[in-house]
Amino acid sequence: MKKVGIEAISFYVPQLFLEIADLAEARNIAFAKLNKGLGLNKMALCDQNEDAASMAATALLKLIDENNIDPRAIGRIYLGTESALDAAKPTATYATGMVEEKLTDKFGARCFKNCDVVDLTFACIGAVDALHNSLDWIRAGENRQAIVIASDLAKYELNSTGEYTQGAGAIALHLTENPQILSISDTVGVGQESVGDFFKPRRSFAKDQVLKSTAQSLKQLISASEKDELLNSDDSFWGKENTEFELFKEEPVFDGPYSNECYQNRIAEALEHYKNQAELNVLKDWQHLIFHLPYAFQGRRMILKNWLQWQKETDNLAQLYSEIGEPNTDSYSDWLKLAAKSAAYQNFVTERIAPGEKASAEIGNMYTASIFMSLLSMLANAAAQGRDVQGETVGFLSYGSGSKAKVFQGEIAAGWKAQIDKLDLFKQLDSRHAISTAEYEALHRRQITVPISQGESFRFSHLSQEELKKGYRNYQFQRGEK
Amino acid sequence: MKKVGIEAISFYVPQLFLEIADLAEARNIAFAKLNKGLGLNKMALCDQNEDAASMAATALLKLIDENNIDPRAIGRIYLGTESALDAAKPTATYATGMVEEKLTDKFGARCFKNCDVVDLTFACIGAVDALHNSLDWIRAGENRQAIVIASDLAKYELNSTGEYTQGAGAIALHLTENPQILSISDTVGVGQESVGDFFKPRRSFAKDQVLKSTAQSLKQLISASEKDELLNSDDSFWGKENTEFELFKEEPVFDGPYSNECYQNRIAEALEHYKNQAELNVLKDWQHLIFHLPYAFQGRRMILKNWLQWQKETDNLAQLYSEIGEPNTDSYSDWLKLAAKSAAYQNFVTERIAPGEKASAEIGNMYTASIFMSLLSMLANAAAQGRDVQGETVGFLSYGSGSKAKVFQGEIAAGWKAQIDKLDLFKQLDSRHAISTAEYEALHRRQITVPISQGESFRFSHLSQEELKKGYRNYQFQRGEK
Repeated sequence: MKKVGIEAISFYVPQLFLEIADLAEARNIAFAKLNKGLGLNKMALCDQNEDAASMAATALLKLIDENNIDPRAIGRIYLGTESALDAAKPTATYATGMVEEKLTDKFGARCFKNCDVVDLTFACIGAVDALHNSLDWIRAGENRQAIVIASDLAKYELNSTGEYTQGAGAIALHLTENPQILSISDTVGVGQESVGDFFKPRRSFAKDQVLKSTAQSLKQLISASEKDELLNSDDSFWGKENTEFELFKEEPVFDGPYSNECYQNRIAEALEHYKNQAELNVLKDWQHLIFHLPYAFQGRRMILKNWLQWQKETDNLAQLYSEIGEPNTDSYSDWLKLAAKSAAYQNFVTERIAPGEKASAEIGNMYTASIFMSLLSMLANAAAQGRDVQGETVGFLSYGSGSKAKVFQGEIAAGWKAQIDKLDLFKQLDSRHAISTAEYEALHRRQITVPISQGESFRFSHLSQEELKKGYRNYQFQRGEK
Repeated sequence: MKKVGIEAISFYVPQLFLEIADLAEARNIAFAKLNKGLGLNKMALCDQNEDAASMAATALLKLIDENNIDPRAIGRIYLGTESALDAAKPTATYATGMVEEKLTDKFGARCFKNCDVVDLTFACIGAVDALHNSLDWIRAGENRQAIVIASDLAKYELNSTGEYTQGAGAIALHLTENPQILSISDTVGVGQESVGDFFKPRRSFAKDQVLKSTAQSLKQLISASEKDELLNSDDSFWGKENTEFELFKEEPVFDGPYSNECYQNRIAEALEHYKNQAELNVLKDWQHLIFHLPYAFQGRRMILKNWLQWQKETDNLAQLYSEIGEPNTDSYSDWLKLAAKSAAYQNFVTERIAPGEKASAEIGNMYTASIFMSLLSMLANAAAQGRDVQGETVGFLSYGSGSKAKVFQGEIAAGWKAQIDKLDLFKQLDSRHAISTAEYEALHRRQITVPISQGESFRFSHLSQEELKKGYRNYQFQRGEK
């Protein structure tokens, strides 16, 4: 079977960030809890004119420019996102539309005219689905080229328990035959169950009730006739059609501990499903473990019990027991804490998981893009350390709330270093613009009206106002100052 | 290359409908304009507890039950929809969750535990994308089985120009190797451009402005301090976070004539792209033309100019000229009207397009499901007429606003008739429940609180109210009375 996988990668992370130390202070949380406990250092934040489409477009343009890709040869551009800007028009088309226009001088009008474009939605795993489908499509033809984009912003309520796990950014992957960075095999383990651990529902409000409570807040009881007049008017907000509002909110409804449990269970099911299809001994076969990371230390925290199982499979438990003693069923949870701190586990984390966490610590949750940023982080770290990882095997443990896990495997290819070096990941992350907690809060509440950040990137410009196009999103390219 | 395609089909159309004659009367539109002009007869309407998830689940359950499918053997269930109920959790999981529970007695718990599930979004073409990706996946393995679901409700503003093109319903397709109904070849022509012909944006309102105008409507000018108090409160609607609302509306923003033009242009581009990859002479190669139908006569209206081109390619123009004369550049549009009414074109429509329109006339726009309902309509019509269509070729002309067209081809397989007969399509459509215009309007405004319709199907029951699960959708199976 032919080799297919990742030929090139690009990324876009917003220029703005908040120091987790600043947030911790403002929220009266011990910084160590967030930094040592969860691995958090900085949180990337969209500027007031950035969104999932603008970030996707910037990553896509960078991918094409930096790799001299002929966009007319790209057969499909698939976007995974849970920050879609429209319920019918794919956010992917906003992105391809922007890039197409920017590339007109070089490649002529409409370089994506025959390109298959679509959005896939499954919380944080949608881009993994885009990846697998695109690899199948490449396998089914000759010399096909695809691009997969993951673009999201993770926004949580101010003062909520999710607040410190925010983040944003986009990754674009160029997929081809005989790829330079990573070939990906076609065995995929799936674990899936419909649950509500994290979701973004419409929020319904009865107009009648809202109006009544508003009038009461204004110390004035609204009369029945006044209410009827307003609700039967042409007022674009209150007016006649429908008896209720449905509000869209970027911020999810979620249950953190339950979501962790779902992540863990789905991964176990996906691993089992994988093993039904192919041989797998994780400790022997996977030199690197790349996770979906809602926060930097999610993977190392979650995988401990699996690791104990893997130690057993490889007859390594004796060594652990000699270090921390055998488990005692009376205080198993205490023993697990010892196991987590054991040299054996810490070595495992340091060698196979930690390199993939580094970028996450500086960015925060990128939802669909997190797992691909983790791959990039691991590769950039190896390059920085001068390690040659060609031929090493990467195990992917992906998860999307709602819920689904997919487990699959890749092999690092011969051209990986040149492709990764040119991205200069950690240097790029070091040259962003810090904002204060006050600025962050104003941005969160949409009280900032002028963009704060510079830098070459696509930005939202305005909504169309014409009757038949009302609400259509318009973007422009912002030339950087560097 | 192995044959892959559609093994079985199921459909679910809501039990409620409005006679287009009744709507025409209420809106003071000539019924002939809608009926003779656009081909409309009835409009399917979701009951107050039906949505894209409940319809998808009902179609999925029917597919499994009616075809004795072992759900544990299904490797993926992909949903195309533009009526998604959540921005992160795929609507597909709500559907698979309902069906899984219903099948527990027969197949044990969690029959979709290892099933890959996801939503694809690209207006009306998302399910076609789900189809193509699933066929590639089947081609890439051995004996793989997939299900693709298309589920949507087309809801437009009351009194708008889109009102009479509403509709609703779901289709589920069982995809396998060596299928009984239709094998689908792997050549796909694509035409794509980012435009705003039809979309479902978030509607932004500044809280400040809304509150001011509300107070004015109430004949009371709100004081600055009162306003600040409300906007800084914990009120779940007005309260502190964010300065604006984003409303979700099921009803799209659209420009009908422009959207027709986009549909036409994308189809032309997709046909050209198809011909770059494979030989195609439409009149010789395609015995049936199956379109995405926003209204029944969309295909026959749109394809006239292409047909003239095809007549030219097959040296048939002389016959047409002898009937209606040669085109005169001064009054080309008049000549086109003659061409549309010519016996040659009418025969073409009657033979190759009209059978696919019949179900659409009785249902209205099903968005993603429309093109598959058109296929079913054509096959059910052939079965009813006792025509054997085995071996005949079907050309598909699909479209999604925003915008993308895909053109592809299928061949009717040996088992088609038995598979189609058992669905009893037209009889099922004849046994629905008519509602009055007044009931329809109340339903549209969400003023109906008790379901009107009976019949075996999944129905929405309630939103979860617990803090960490607020807004999660719960469903139940409604046993029919028949």
